[in-house]
Amino acid sequence: MLRIAVLGCGRIGKMHAHNIACHPRAELVAVFDVNKSAAQSVAKAYSTVVADSDTAVFSNDNIDAVLIASATETHSDYIEKAVAAGKPALCEKPIDLNLERVKSCAAKIAGSNVPIQLGFNHRFDPGHKAARNAMQSGEIGDLHQIIITSRDPSLPPRSYLEEAGGLLRDMTIHDFDLARFMLDGDPVESVFAIASAMINPTLGAELNEVDTAMIIMRSVGGIQVHINNSRTAVYGYDQRVELMGSAGMVLSDNRKPHECRKYSASIVEAAEPYQHFFIERYTESYIAEVDAFIDTVENGAPMIAEFDDGQQALILAEAAYLSLREGRMVYVNEI
Amino acid sequence: MLRIAVLGCGRIGKMHAHNIACHPRAELVAVFDVNKSAAQSVAKAYSTVVADSDTAVFSNDNIDAVLIASATETHSDYIEKAVAAGKPALCEKPIDLNLERVKSCAAKIAGSNVPIQLGFNHRFDPGHKAARNAMQSGEIGDLHQIIITSRDPSLPPRSYLEEAGGLLRDMTIHDFDLARFMLDGDPVESVFAIASAMINPTLGAELNEVDTAMIIMRSVGGIQVHINNSRTAVYGYDQRVELMGSAGMVLSDNRKPHECRKYSASIVEAAEPYQHFFIERYTESYIAEVDAFIDTVENGAPMIAEFDDGQQALILAEAAYLSLREGRMVYVNEI
Amino acid sequence: MLRIAVLGCGRIGKMHAHNIACHPRAELVAVFDVNKSAAQSVAKAYSTVVADSDTAVFSNDNIDAVLIASATETHSDYIEKAVAAGKPALCEKPIDLNLERVKSCAAKIAGSNVPIQLGFNHRFDPGHKAARNAMQSGEIGDLHQIIITSRDPSLPPRSYLEEAGGLLRDMTIHDFDLARFMLDGDPVESVFAIASAMINPTLGAELNEVDTAMIIMRSVGGIQVHINNSRTAVYGYDQRVELMGSAGMVLSDNRKPHECRKYSASIVEAAEPYQHFFIERYTESYIAEVDAFIDTVENGAPMIAEFDDGQQALILAEAAYLSLREGRMVYVNEI
Amino acid sequence: MLRIAVLGCGRIGKMHAHNIACHPRAELVAVFDVNKSAAQSVAKAYSTVVADSDTAVFSNDNIDAVLIASATETHSDYIEKAVAAGKPALCEKPIDLNLERVKSCAAKIAGSNVPIQLGFNHRFDPGHKAARNAMQSGEIGDLHQIIITSRDPSLPPRSYLEEAGGLLRDMTIHDFDLARFMLDGDPVESVFAIASAMINPTLGAELNEVDTAMIIMRSVGGIQVHINNSRTAVYGYDQRVELMGSAGMVLSDNRKPHECRKYSASIVEAAEPYQHFFIERYTESYIAEVDAFIDTVENGAPMIAEFDDGQQALILAEAAYLSLREGRMVYVNEI
Repeated sequence: MLRIAVLGCGRIGKMHAHNIACHPRAELVAVFDVNKSAAQSVAKAYSTVVADSDTAVFSNDNIDAVLIASATETHSDYIEKAVAAGKPALCEKPIDLNLERVKSCAAKIAGSNVPIQLGFNHRFDPGHKAARNAMQSGEIGDLHQIIITSRDPSLPPRSYLEEAGGLLRDMTIHDFDLARFMLDGDPVESVFAIASAMINPTLGAELNEVDTAMIIMRSVGGIQVHINNSRTAVYGYDQRVELMGSAGMVLSDNRKPHECRKYSASIVEAAEPYQHFFIERYTESYIAEVDAFIDTVENGAPMIAEFDDGQQALILAEAAYLSLREGRMVYVNEI
Repeated sequence: MLRIAVLGCGRIGKMHAHNIACHPRAELVAVFDVNKSAAQSVAKAYSTVVADSDTAVFSNDNIDAVLIASATETHSDYIEKAVAAGKPALCEKPIDLNLERVKSCAAKIAGSNVPIQLGFNHRFDPGHKAARNAMQSGEIGDLHQIIITSRDPSLPPRSYLEEAGGLLRDMTIHDFDLARFMLDGDPVESVFAIASAMINPTLGAELNEVDTAMIIMRSVGGIQVHINNSRTAVYGYDQRVELMGSAGMVLSDNRKPHECRKYSASIVEAAEPYQHFFIERYTESYIAEVDAFIDTVENGAPMIAEFDDGQQALILAEAAYLSLREGRMVYVNEI
Repeated sequence: MLRIAVLGCGRIGKMHAHNIACHPRAELVAVFDVNKSAAQSVAKAYSTVVADSDTAVFSNDNIDAVLIASATETHSDYIEKAVAAGKPALCEKPIDLNLERVKSCAAKIAGSNVPIQLGFNHRFDPGHKAARNAMQSGEIGDLHQIIITSRDPSLPPRSYLEEAGGLLRDMTIHDFDLARFMLDGDPVESVFAIASAMINPTLGAELNEVDTAMIIMRSVGGIQVHINNSRTAVYGYDQRVELMGSAGMVLSDNRKPHECRKYSASIVEAAEPYQHFFIERYTESYIAEVDAFIDTVENGAPMIAEFDDGQQALILAEAAYLSLREGRMVYVNEI
Repeated sequence: MLRIAVLGCGRIGKMHAHNIACHPRAELVAVFDVNKSAAQSVAKAYSTVVADSDTAVFSNDNIDAVLIASATETHSDYIEKAVAAGKPALCEKPIDLNLERVKSCAAKIAGSNVPIQLGFNHRFDPGHKAARNAMQSGEIGDLHQIIITSRDPSLPPRSYLEEAGGLLRDMTIHDFDLARFMLDGDPVESVFAIASAMINPTLGAELNEVDTAMIIMRSVGGIQVHINNSRTAVYGYDQRVELMGSAGMVLSDNRKPHECRKYSASIVEAAEPYQHFFIERYTESYIAEVDAFIDTVENGAPMIAEFDDGQQALILAEAAYLSLREGRMVYVNEI
């Protein structure tokens, strides 16, 4: 049994706490949140304790590992503390919104062999994984194109947007990472992006933020990647990945809450809107990433999403922002 | 070029005339209808002539074959005349609503080698054929169950119902035939049916007619068959065939007018109602059956739907009616 | 927190124990199994205790309710004991394979207001429920036909078949119940069935057991029901429900493990076989039925599947067996 | 009856001849091809005559209109001759591979009111039209993104590629036009493209030709457009259009030859590869464009695809080529 503490008891931390509590090979030994009542509520539901402080978590010998689901600005510090304490960490994305801070964190933990897994949960989605497996086993021949459709169900509140770091660092970061995952070691060479505030132009202008984007990337090996994003897909969280190859294609499509379809005088085969958002759509992925984390810590299994993946995805976001500003294709090595 | 005359210029006759006129190996040499203006309208559209009488068609040496699309009560007579005149015929179903008349017609044409093809167009549907081909090539292993869903888009007018001979002889006849086609030589042994007037009970009571039915049949080889019928599928003509076997399943599903799907805050993947009715849904089948007819006449290709198939389907309808009356499974050899 | 003990720690009991342990409003306070090591393994995984005996469970004041997942022949006894002890029970189907035993159990617990919920989990499937909700809200107009396709992925082992009580009592029982659920209070009036051993005729002959069946039922209100069953759908657990009405249709279709589809030179839109069996397909249903049970016990919510539903489904199975033997439609009131 | 002559009896000309011959409001009065035997074969199949020369077609008073399906380099000349002769023309795309020639042709026919319809048949596809209708009727709110997937089934022969003018002028031209059709009057402002020879790099290098491309465009109104192309989709002709809006999405998806799906121990819901290529996939579109042409000529109906559309699509291709060369976003007004 791996004894895990959860740092951060907001929406995502709560879900991770649940997954750890239900996991047959893990034990939820403590939770912590700067908001004490949030921590207490989670502790009660899963019969565990609230830690006195984050420091107490890192110094506790009865805690084997930590899951970091606290506010973004704490991530790098916690990673550094986890490494210092020799406690493996599964850290929610992003490492930090500032690339320099990510680099300094990288420098600080360099050489350590304490596993730091990044929470790029899309990599663990059963459909996306099946697509990648099919590609790796040669079912589509040589990979030529990757098309990622990634649209959130609705514009987050203004307060969230003010903190989130911008569409490309907050939301597209998952797609940059997923593209890298599908490229399977072939690095991205260049990036082109367009973006604007189409859903809420007023808010966009006030926050200097965009809500709708299209990106093209090319890998060193010549593979073409397209990502399209929107903050408002009224029909539900739209998460598709298409891998086009010389001998076939695979498409990881959206997931519905159930398979009931309706037929009337005006429509046929109509289903309910897609699973609303990441908690529902990526339920299995969140469980699988905890599972993989335990495998890494207990059995030394190779990590599926590591610290450097977080850094590389952020570099792509920076390249895309530069492309936006200059209206040209940006080479990744310019960043 | 096979020179074909079309007898009957109603909705179906008109469509057959069009298909023959467009067929590269056929020529529409004459049309006839007791309603002369209907015949003239078709003749004009396809630059052909109106025959003076049906008799004139059968005696005309410049007519190689006939397509019989006239009123049901003329079918048997026309088949007998076609055989007497040595003119191959493609005759719309049913041969007759009265089994005795069908038997006397069979007796009269016995021994002739003039091809008489029956208009069981469902046998020619690309989807249904693909299902059968998969079964015949062993893809589903041994066939165990056949499920046929067959629902018309709307209750026909009272005048039609008064003449049609009853749901099981008029509409289910196609499904009885399709079941036999899928059974591929294994004869039906027994039939059980329930039916009632659910869509329009008043009309049903007045005409002693049903509009909704369920049937179970078993073949001599033990294969189980289910047919369900309705006269009113508001979502369009519902025509599905499922073949369940020991090593797999095939499903010939419905066909939409196009593949545009809609996504909104209340539904996803919604398509337009299915192709309205047989003229639209079985367009390719009607063309293919004329094609097959030409192959039979010109090259001696085996017939895919012949006179006896019409007779056997009617026998199943009679067995089903007997089952309805007696609330029991009826053996086909009781008819 | 409802304190629940689980009786029976086989495959299903283990799953129920997991669901209770993860449920935020329930606590898994004890488990019991005649196989002590099975009980210990479950107790360890979910940090609970093994009860000394079933009797000890019923007499323990710190246990609020029981979940009965033990062998079928214990169900009626346990139900009677639960009622005697005033402990609400959620009991796996069937109540008993013998209708007389079910009736005597019913007589014994008559008048009690201790909730006894039956484990007809299909009623809790999100897709099936959505179909029923659509019907109840009038979306399909008047219900005319119900078509249930229910096929297991593979023939169970001989040892299971020897104990299971026959296809119609063991497997079709779920479909009889689901038909009743969709009929929504309109009782089944008559039943017709055919069945044979097509998958393994040798085994069928030895055990006097069938593996493939088709059933037609009619309700008092005239609604037509079709059920088809097979013990071997190689493409995965096939669980579909179709409700056909005067103004539309709803179809609760199968669920795939994920939505990855493959495209090659020989096929398009190919998905992986359906979720293998009930544990996977009905995951959400099993959770939902525990949830409903807690609602009933704690808040007096009406039961969705109760004792009498178990008895009525068994009566339909008996009617179907009589129909098989006599080749005729059997009225339910003959049983 | 509109009397139409067909110029060019290759694969496309032959299909147009068939459609005209079958059209109830059109008459195929003559065909012409520099390859006389090709013309004779078509004339025989549809009982029409072979014109002595192209000149003879334009001077024939019994020919009301022409359909131009000859080699690309003849298109501009024929258009000019048609205008001079006062004969409406339906001309296959492209007008010419050279933008200067298109401009000179435009200049020459300026001011004429002889209808010149361009063969952008994708505009007439029932699915694409339904998508556009849904958008125009407000079903998706404000349009934000257009995603066009357009992949041919296989690399054409070298001889074709040598003449075709390059991927973006030959194949993407349809997608540029379709994007413009969906933009519905909002002009394209800028274009970015990447492309390379991934399917056959050797051939690509020899011909300086690409076979795989991705494009992003932005309209003056800010709408984002993505096009992806491949010359080899082994799973069949892949033709999808997605319109994403503030209140919903519509997707015009691929069309299968029939709706038979297969289920086995390794796959479910597998269909046959998509309709092979444009003749099959756009059958209805080709018929509909002839229909629209007749409506324009006989009733003055507005043209759905006109000369200027051909010119504008070519300008987008030129902009894309410039973007390829310079690795930057190109403004359309640079061309």
